[in-house]
Amino acid sequence: MQRKSEKPIKITEVCLRDGSHVVAHQFTEEQVRDVAQALDAAGMHYIEVSHGDGLGGSTIQYGRSRVNEMKLIETAVSVCKQATVAVLLIPGIGTVNELKQAQELGAGLVRVATHVTEADVSAQHIHLARELGMEALGFLMMAHSAPVDKLVEQAKLMESYGAQAVYVTDSAGALLPHEVRERIAALRQSLDIEIGFHAHNNLSLAMANTLAAIEEGATRIDGSMRCLGAGAGNTQTEVLVAVLERLGIDVGIDLYQMMDVAEEIVGPILPGSQEIKKGSLVMGYAGVYSSFLLHAERAGKRFGIDPRDILIELGRRKAVGGQEDMIIDVAAELAKRQGKGA
Amino acid sequence: MQRKSEKPIKITEVCLRDGSHVVAHQFTEEQVRDVAQALDAAGMHYIEVSHGDGLGGSTIQYGRSRVNEMKLIETAVSVCKQATVAVLLIPGIGTVNELKQAQELGAGLVRVATHVTEADVSAQHIHLARELGMEALGFLMMAHSAPVDKLVEQAKLMESYGAQAVYVTDSAGALLPHEVRERIAALRQSLDIEIGFHAHNNLSLAMANTLAAIEEGATRIDGSMRCLGAGAGNTQTEVLVAVLERLGIDVGIDLYQMMDVAEEIVGPILPGSQEIKKGSLVMGYAGVYSSFLLHAERAGKRFGIDPRDILIELGRRKAVGGQEDMIIDVAAELAKRQGKGA
Repeated sequence: MQRKSEKPIKITEVCLRDGSHVVAHQFTEEQVRDVAQALDAAGMHYIEVSHGDGLGGSTIQYGRSRVNEMKLIETAVSVCKQATVAVLLIPGIGTVNELKQAQELGAGLVRVATHVTEADVSAQHIHLARELGMEALGFLMMAHSAPVDKLVEQAKLMESYGAQAVYVTDSAGALLPHEVRERIAALRQSLDIEIGFHAHNNLSLAMANTLAAIEEGATRIDGSMRCLGAGAGNTQTEVLVAVLERLGIDVGIDLYQMMDVAEEIVGPILPGSQEIKKGSLVMGYAGVYSSFLLHAERAGKRFGIDPRDILIELGRRKAVGGQEDMIIDVAAELAKRQGKGA
Repeated sequence: MQRKSEKPIKITEVCLRDGSHVVAHQFTEEQVRDVAQALDAAGMHYIEVSHGDGLGGSTIQYGRSRVNEMKLIETAVSVCKQATVAVLLIPGIGTVNELKQAQELGAGLVRVATHVTEADVSAQHIHLARELGMEALGFLMMAHSAPVDKLVEQAKLMESYGAQAVYVTDSAGALLPHEVRERIAALRQSLDIEIGFHAHNNLSLAMANTLAAIEEGATRIDGSMRCLGAGAGNTQTEVLVAVLERLGIDVGIDLYQMMDVAEEIVGPILPGSQEIKKGSLVMGYAGVYSSFLLHAERAGKRFGIDPRDILIELGRRKAVGGQEDMIIDVAAELAKRQGKGA
């Protein structure tokens, strides 16, 4: 493996944020404290703590958190001796007030996340974060659904707002390794800031894509212990540390401690197994949000067609979150085409 | 992705053989019938059915099968309309008699498996299989533990015996993608027969390594539905079919049917989850057989050292199955080096 960057790789552990989806946002203070403390001791660089949908996500729509995320952030900060506590903010869900509060509680980094074509909504939050002295990074979600030049254009916007890195975020776990390569390479050529990569494992490619990203020069990498993240989970962090060691890439994180944290602290939190099952496989194959699955199943029943056909068509049309209405239209059209009716 | 072969990819489903380890060799006739029938209907090319350690593996040492594997082979053959039923044979465990019997029952392909440095013991079984009119393939296990030129030398031996393909078998899930590439490329250059690849997912690299192998020209690929295989399981077959479709590689296997078989027929057989846990991660990182894990834990306790140190040292020394005695020696040495004693 030949790395196209001499900068050190910085790992962000997302199990306490992306994994929030898996536990229906029911993390307890004790769980967050134990995981953060153990990861900090193992040498983890960044630990992200927020509702699964970022700051302010605890709502009827996105699912109520058991414990206020500010309390969880405070808890994580209180036990971290060297790791930086990070937060996620999706403009429209989270606000500047929540960002200020998180910063006051000790969060040192924010990732401002937008759909891959909507970077412009990140401007004020990136500006504010920099003013507050936080690290401010951009996070372009559903990165598979935009052409490479569009992705570059949007990343450059985030850079112009002051983002110190931009992530290619493969929210649906839909990217193939060569698609990751071309995206990271294009960003490397066009930006002066660091490039990050956030994988999901829906196609069993999280590790492959992560290594492809690192090879092309990405230096900010996300992982989740025991794959505790949405869909089929993320790049499994403790395995990533092992693979990087085998590749001779030193990240200064203790492998044995990571194995122990995964087994003894994160393992017992898992509500079920993080394997690739039908739902997450379809999601990765079609390239759609998991929130579409249930709607597609209902529409499939109503119109007598396979819900997978609906999801794949939605993926072709690049449907984004919030466009669940489109599902009925697509289902009706497909039913007509297949000679079936509701 | 650029494939270096124009030959079609042939998939062998190993969940009914490698997965036998996971269910402690307790497959029932009904399970084998249901899985084989559904996979055959989906278009699977080869379905391997044998004890986890191959023909004749049902012993006190390797674990008794619940149902005689000949009965299971017969059952699978009886429901396959187009798929070929394959068997595994490890010389020293299986014998020519069992091979003849399997062939009479309708098995059409045998993979003769040896440690990567011991290909010479495969000669008589490959010869016999060819005489019987079976497809006869070589299967070089623990392929990570030999230098590339040794692997090539051993593969050429198998070719000289009449093997129609030779597999790079990553038994411990220890190979990194660039190591797979160099092995497949070297074999392609030196052999006139097809090259196969059998992955394990201990480092979360089964899919990455499988794609690397295909890119370098491997045309025989193994997978297991729902990762039902030893260690962390194999390349997940239904996911592989999805990824190959996305890459534009047509294998003639129905994706939706594969998803349904995985969810509805194989899923309920899983005794637990096939995630990457501590044991399988250590095995992949150290590059040792899973049978060493328990011995290393015992020796670790006795000598007051971390069992992982023992396993990593065993990996360095390229310990092979059957050399469990070495574990005590290594543990004693490490304890001395670390200033500890039994």
